[in-house]
Amino acid sequence: MIENLKKYFVEFIGTFFLVFTIGATAAWGGETCIAPIAIGFILMVMVYAGGHISGGHYNPAVSFAAAIRGALEWKQWIPYAIFQILGGICAALTINLLSGGLDAPAKSSFSLATILLAEFLFTFALCYVVLNTATSKRTEGNSYYGLAIGSTVTAGAFAVGNVCMGAFNPAVAISVSVMGAVCCPCIAVITIAANLLGGACAGLVFKLTNND
Amino acid sequence: MIENLKKYFVEFIGTFFLVFTIGATAAWGGETCIAPIAIGFILMVMVYAGGHISGGHYNPAVSFAAAIRGALEWKQWIPYAIFQILGGICAALTINLLSGGLDAPAKSSFSLATILLAEFLFTFALCYVVLNTATSKRTEGNSYYGLAIGSTVTAGAFAVGNVCMGAFNPAVAISVSVMGAVCCPCIAVITIAANLLGGACAGLVFKLTNND
Amino acid sequence: MIENLKKYFVEFIGTFFLVFTIGATAAWGGETCIAPIAIGFILMVMVYAGGHISGGHYNPAVSFAAAIRGALEWKQWIPYAIFQILGGICAALTINLLSGGLDAPAKSSFSLATILLAEFLFTFALCYVVLNTATSKRTEGNSYYGLAIGSTVTAGAFAVGNVCMGAFNPAVAISVSVMGAVCCPCIAVITIAANLLGGACAGLVFKLTNND
Amino acid sequence: MIENLKKYFVEFIGTFFLVFTIGATAAWGGETCIAPIAIGFILMVMVYAGGHISGGHYNPAVSFAAAIRGALEWKQWIPYAIFQILGGICAALTINLLSGGLDAPAKSSFSLATILLAEFLFTFALCYVVLNTATSKRTEGNSYYGLAIGSTVTAGAFAVGNVCMGAFNPAVAISVSVMGAVCCPCIAVITIAANLLGGACAGLVFKLTNND
Repeated sequence: MIENLKKYFVEFIGTFFLVFTIGATAAWGGETCIAPIAIGFILMVMVYAGGHISGGHYNPAVSFAAAIRGALEWKQWIPYAIFQILGGICAALTINLLSGGLDAPAKSSFSLATILLAEFLFTFALCYVVLNTATSKRTEGNSYYGLAIGSTVTAGAFAVGNVCMGAFNPAVAISVSVMGAVCCPCIAVITIAANLLGGACAGLVFKLTNND
Repeated sequence: MIENLKKYFVEFIGTFFLVFTIGATAAWGGETCIAPIAIGFILMVMVYAGGHISGGHYNPAVSFAAAIRGALEWKQWIPYAIFQILGGICAALTINLLSGGLDAPAKSSFSLATILLAEFLFTFALCYVVLNTATSKRTEGNSYYGLAIGSTVTAGAFAVGNVCMGAFNPAVAISVSVMGAVCCPCIAVITIAANLLGGACAGLVFKLTNND
Repeated sequence: MIENLKKYFVEFIGTFFLVFTIGATAAWGGETCIAPIAIGFILMVMVYAGGHISGGHYNPAVSFAAAIRGALEWKQWIPYAIFQILGGICAALTINLLSGGLDAPAKSSFSLATILLAEFLFTFALCYVVLNTATSKRTEGNSYYGLAIGSTVTAGAFAVGNVCMGAFNPAVAISVSVMGAVCCPCIAVITIAANLLGGACAGLVFKLTNND
Repeated sequence: MIENLKKYFVEFIGTFFLVFTIGATAAWGGETCIAPIAIGFILMVMVYAGGHISGGHYNPAVSFAAAIRGALEWKQWIPYAIFQILGGICAALTINLLSGGLDAPAKSSFSLATILLAEFLFTFALCYVVLNTATSKRTEGNSYYGLAIGSTVTAGAFAVGNVCMGAFNPAVAISVSVMGAVCCPCIAVITIAANLLGGACAGLVFKLTNND
């Protein structure tokens, strides 16, 4: 039990800093801030700092993919997701308190299908990278898993950050909504669905292509 | 057979995301997007995610160099190239569907020799880095091969991305043509030739300088 | 004794280059300089260069956290902090000599609580990352600790560099004051307090979540 | 003999690409090019690609420091330096041929002492990082040496690239002069002297602080 609480606490901390960095770069970053690099870097460092304790997911879609692949017990998925979402919401409330909340973006000019596909594709890529670099027997003991995981989010945010939320993570989608930076509530719901679908597909593709 | 299909599938996925990121940063990246970093990062993460399954080439010129060096069976070169090109074309068609295709650049003001040399040099560098970091016995088990491979493309795209296509990869050259972002079709043909020549030279230089 | 002097000398060198890079990017970096990347990178390389000798702290808050965690003898904390601060002040005086000192920023429009919290949070993150990647038995022998540590400072500087000093380090807070780049002296004092508090919390959280 | 020729050839290739990237980013990089990142990355990848063959110096000052530290035979220093300079000059002539040479910068407004100190400090840092990450017994087998070495040049170029040549490397100082991008010939001479002095100091500091 105490070991599980440690894991949840680490997931809480990591997701807190991920969302705090997203909010802070949006609220205070200014012109010279390269938000996708900051966001990818904070995810990377939290993965490296917490990976040996909790797995370093900080993302219910990643935990979902890990459960499908067998790297996380199914009964742990709900508490993992809860603590991830709690960490994100705490960070969002902190940003709201300090900055008065983020501005809502203008209504997206992209079709719903484009938004869905963009979120789906990079959440798939993220979970595919996590499973292959952090849970595969054949890459065990490597030092690159955090770099690979964080950099996937950086690449995805550069590529489709202007198209969709660029969350690739239900806890982020919820937290960004709490900060007010979504044009309409349904986008967050759609994003979460696309994220979980991406995680599920990554879990299946991992099982299909690995012999672990 | 089933093991080979897994490899082809992984090559398909990696090249899909490489080309999708190239297309998405061009179509939707906006001013703050640093495309060479996004492109180098997605290549890096796909190399780390798929390297233990297929070698993580995502590039017919790299597979060509690997075959010359003896790290890929010659009979695998054609199917590798086919699945790489298929992955790239699928990504290009997805970008076309969602964005209506990219704009063709203005006719290059650089001479054909300059274009050829730029593509040749950085494809050589890319394949030279791949062979030395991912197939040499003396660097086996390292954690830096993906970082080195992706960063070569980032450096090359910053250096000569305004001179030539900056593809360093026949699958990318074909896919970028499918998205319409070439000033004339012959450039793609020339690029592919320069890429394969660069890969061949890298294979020979590797054999000359290594004792594996 | 001679072994301790070696450690202090390495801490001096590393903090010198950290502060020199902070000062030089501010004084001469110009428009195309991305200071948070330069600062994170120089910290990373100094950690990799000196980690095997002194631990590569370059930061009294990190040394404080390391002492709490048991990775640094308590009696070493004062000399470590002194040599870190000396290294920083030497770099600051060099910058002053060459450039005539930095401009003081306009008085911050952020509340004291915001400034405190921002410094506290990212110093906590930095020390949490240091302890987990560089002092935990379960991550021993990894090659990523320097990348993780430097990247935390890059992410923090992008996120809150416009809110607070973005020092995350008492030696940096003092040295930046020597260069004149603080709006009022009390900010440096507050920053140092927030940094040490962040280090202390990170030490406690490490002990709570690790079984070393 | 043949083994030595392999090493010289690898040093030639690496320095060629380092200087070609410096010249290409200056000639064709355009506004969105972040030259210090491109230059640091190409050095990193060449270190990773050639380190197991030649040590991956690509820099007479680094070879000088390595000779002082005992990681390179003294009789190898001259041929290493020759092939490094040859590689750089070939790249410079290629850039000249393709682009008509670079523009000379306006006469530096910095004092000679500032220029000297800036070149000295970051060449010292570069050689100090090389010796500690790539030649120390206590860091043997690590995967970060190339990242650390390349990133030192990135940090240095951001910090003092507007003050001095930002060469940190006699082969680069000579090659940049060949491309015409120096305001007066004496700057190159001074730079080379500062670089070798930096390398020598790094060698001594390494011996002072390590017990190898």
